[in-house]
Amino acid sequence: MARRVAVVGAGVSGLAAVKCCLEEGLEPTCFERSDDLGGLWRFTEYVEEGRASLYKSVVSNSCKEMSCYADFPFPEDYPNYVPNSQFLEYLQMYANRFNLLKYIQFKTKVCRVAKCPDFAVSGQWEVVTLHEGKQESAIFDAVMVCTGFLTNPHLPLDSFPGINSFKGQYFHSRQYKHPDIFKDKRVLVVGMGNSGTDIAVEASHVAKKVFLSTTGGAWVISRVFDSGYPWDMVFMTRFQNMFRNSLPTPLVSWLIARKMNSWFNHANYGLVPEDRIQLREPVLNDELPGRIITGKVLIRPSIKEVRENSVLFINTLEEEPIDIIVFATGYTFAFPFLDESVVKVEDGQASLYKYIFPAHLQKPTLAVIGLIKPLGSMIPTGETQSRWAVRVLKGMIKLPPPSVMIEEVNVRKKNKPSGFGLCYCKALQSDYITYIDELLTDINAKPNLLSMLLTDPRLALTVFFGLCTPYQFRLTGPGRWEGARNAILTQWDRTFKVTKTRIVQEPPPPFESLLKLFSFLALLVAIFLVFL
Amino acid sequence: MARRVAVVGAGVSGLAAVKCCLEEGLEPTCFERSDDLGGLWRFTEYVEEGRASLYKSVVSNSCKEMSCYADFPFPEDYPNYVPNSQFLEYLQMYANRFNLLKYIQFKTKVCRVAKCPDFAVSGQWEVVTLHEGKQESAIFDAVMVCTGFLTNPHLPLDSFPGINSFKGQYFHSRQYKHPDIFKDKRVLVVGMGNSGTDIAVEASHVAKKVFLSTTGGAWVISRVFDSGYPWDMVFMTRFQNMFRNSLPTPLVSWLIARKMNSWFNHANYGLVPEDRIQLREPVLNDELPGRIITGKVLIRPSIKEVRENSVLFINTLEEEPIDIIVFATGYTFAFPFLDESVVKVEDGQASLYKYIFPAHLQKPTLAVIGLIKPLGSMIPTGETQSRWAVRVLKGMIKLPPPSVMIEEVNVRKKNKPSGFGLCYCKALQSDYITYIDELLTDINAKPNLLSMLLTDPRLALTVFFGLCTPYQFRLTGPGRWEGARNAILTQWDRTFKVTKTRIVQEPPPPFESLLKLFSFLALLVAIFLVFL
Repeated sequence: MARRVAVVGAGVSGLAAVKCCLEEGLEPTCFERSDDLGGLWRFTEYVEEGRASLYKSVVSNSCKEMSCYADFPFPEDYPNYVPNSQFLEYLQMYANRFNLLKYIQFKTKVCRVAKCPDFAVSGQWEVVTLHEGKQESAIFDAVMVCTGFLTNPHLPLDSFPGINSFKGQYFHSRQYKHPDIFKDKRVLVVGMGNSGTDIAVEASHVAKKVFLSTTGGAWVISRVFDSGYPWDMVFMTRFQNMFRNSLPTPLVSWLIARKMNSWFNHANYGLVPEDRIQLREPVLNDELPGRIITGKVLIRPSIKEVRENSVLFINTLEEEPIDIIVFATGYTFAFPFLDESVVKVEDGQASLYKYIFPAHLQKPTLAVIGLIKPLGSMIPTGETQSRWAVRVLKGMIKLPPPSVMIEEVNVRKKNKPSGFGLCYCKALQSDYITYIDELLTDINAKPNLLSMLLTDPRLALTVFFGLCTPYQFRLTGPGRWEGARNAILTQWDRTFKVTKTRIVQEPPPPFESLLKLFSFLALLVAIFLVFL
Repeated sequence: MARRVAVVGAGVSGLAAVKCCLEEGLEPTCFERSDDLGGLWRFTEYVEEGRASLYKSVVSNSCKEMSCYADFPFPEDYPNYVPNSQFLEYLQMYANRFNLLKYIQFKTKVCRVAKCPDFAVSGQWEVVTLHEGKQESAIFDAVMVCTGFLTNPHLPLDSFPGINSFKGQYFHSRQYKHPDIFKDKRVLVVGMGNSGTDIAVEASHVAKKVFLSTTGGAWVISRVFDSGYPWDMVFMTRFQNMFRNSLPTPLVSWLIARKMNSWFNHANYGLVPEDRIQLREPVLNDELPGRIITGKVLIRPSIKEVRENSVLFINTLEEEPIDIIVFATGYTFAFPFLDESVVKVEDGQASLYKYIFPAHLQKPTLAVIGLIKPLGSMIPTGETQSRWAVRVLKGMIKLPPPSVMIEEVNVRKKNKPSGFGLCYCKALQSDYITYIDELLTDINAKPNLLSMLLTDPRLALTVFFGLCTPYQFRLTGPGRWEGARNAILTQWDRTFKVTKTRIVQEPPPPFESLLKLFSFLALLVAIFLVFL
């Protein structure tokens, strides 16, 4: 059984890993390259090597009730979507609350993690670190790698013919910090992931002209979803997940497209995704259509050619003068401290069983945490991964033999659609609730809805029809949190508390009693359909 | 009959007045106090006395197809909602196209407009002007006052106890130009009309903290309306107008509330209007709920007390530290160059028949243009008012006797709800289509839908079910524009042209033919209900 665990990185997943080690009686040592915790959530004015880089205005894409650690809700007065500075404060509170700081060695870069000579027997690792110019080496029973996937910018300049002749300024979105640099310039942002879209919208407040070029398009949704509820609080319920996963993929895609187009018709705004079956993560932006309809952001297709002071797009004959190009072309990830024989990254994927354990190692003593893009929040995902991984490290969960794991990984890599539910365009993407439930089942922490319906029907209905908040993951089993039930039943109170800050007595709607009766009937039918 | 007409002001209404005078063979002379045309749409870095003042980021609230002069569509490549600098360019194009400039005397302030001694017979006015220090006087057969209602800031400091002890900065929203002044400050914006909301949202991108205080609340809608169509292109159809006006007011209010809450539930965001029967103009803002849900704008009720460095709101015990207060408390209007016996302004109203002619004058030779707040665009409203007024000045339309006009004005002033349709909280607000149709009927320019259905059914259906664009007002009668029919039938093309800038081949929806059949049936039923 593992005892001493090296945790690489003190971001959201690293903190969860340290805490889960402590919960299960292991001895974590966390190595953090920079001088503070928080990983990508710590904004600095300058880009730091080896650490994800934020721009000043970043706000969480996942709401506070959905993106907290399962036993540590955000403070009540936090906004529903948390700006980065407050997010960092929350992580600091978490570290303080669970006394994690003393296990973290800051300014300590992990240079190498290598199997010990007796690895086949001991499963141990030699971890070589560098702290203030001094190299040190130590032996650990296990390693949890929590370095994320947003550190290495992907900048495929070859794909942009003529870029070398461009006389303006260009850079990767990772370098972006403040919109001031765009003042009165003609700006082109290439790529419309979350960063590209955010940057284009921000630039549009100060720039002379802003183009956003996208080849594949994307579904853009607002944090302010149906009737103003936070988007993930509407979308992420067990009921809806079950419903989606029981329908054929083409029908789900059609329903999703309809939903996505309810805010604005993506075709009319030039944004419609090229591939509507394989789902990319939707882009979260509250302003983009408003900026397009006022002409502040102009959508364009792919770049045909870059010239000295201008750019030509594939659908136009005239070149557009451009001063600055921002390449929001994403990231790749790598593990420079690991030998390729341990984890090999190919085509943006690593061969990890359950996205965590290298499938081919003789001993499951190295876990990668947070290398997945669930359509949900990273924090509870990394936390649940950590809880599961720690129990594997302790030997309480037995992994299948390597051959079985390799087979499973290979199947996933092919990303072959099952024919039902959502179909993702990348294997790293995964169904949030399904994936978490898989891990929870292994650690006996998955809430049993049927028995709960008998003992605590109110909670059971909230867990099933209500939003799937992380508190659900600590309702039962090892790592159970006393406060979970109450946190679930009050999740909407905390949500409204921060926005319902001016109260007006509401008149009853004209047909109130009729509406109530109808809602009740609809609920009964829904319950009937699902449980029977 | 009037021949020489003095037009006061060269803003959107003044330009229309000059053009309509020319159309009807009158001789206009337009006096413009500042050194260029455009009125409120001309942004300057400094506030000018006697002229409305814009902030840098102002974008039209009414889309380009709805807010153009009836015979002069916006250029095709203009965005759907036009930023102020482009709006000014449009006005300049209009003035050039119809050769209006030579009728405008710039830098000429109108000091006094007084009845000539023989007014009872001649209806003439003496107009005293000041140009570069030189006073001049001239006699005119008629006067068209086009000075608007956004020049005199309304700043009721008495309503804010303690404001005199406040040590921070405070000013009226009229003074606001750029958001830079809010950098890292704690800002309070008082009042949530369009300016207040815009300013709060803009401040929230740079300020440390932004509060928006509103007593009455407001419905906030986005330019990006149902499925992304421009809000007024959805809302402003003859069909919908007729539908709304045939329902009892409480039901309309309920339907409106439902519609307004479809983007976000106003109660949950602290914005719900106190009075939901009497409609205030809705606030147009694309970003506000997104800024609230991310905690960047904090909604508060009325101010209880202002202290040295802080403010106390009525629902809280703790004071909030504040550095800057912006009073977005609106405007009053006045006619300093007119004697009270001509037009008296009381309670934010003037006694104008059809919002245009002083009801009690012996001769109808003074018209006020643009002193109305229709739930629609000012440009076509001012233009139609001018067309009607000019024909009154020419004697082609006879006004009722003063006693009848005074009676009608008094009834309107009481603003007593009819029991059907929308009910506005202020008498200056009016039903756009109904009001314009009233004027068009008098000048024989109202399109006759029934006869059109026989001669040009495609056009008739577009006019009735489609958006009520200003081109409809010049389809027929005096001032008829040849291009109107084509402009109406291509209005959606121009709308999409600027946003549909990246085209992707769309797959047919799974049940396309079924949908088509259903839509066709729905259309038939609608036609049946309306025409039979």
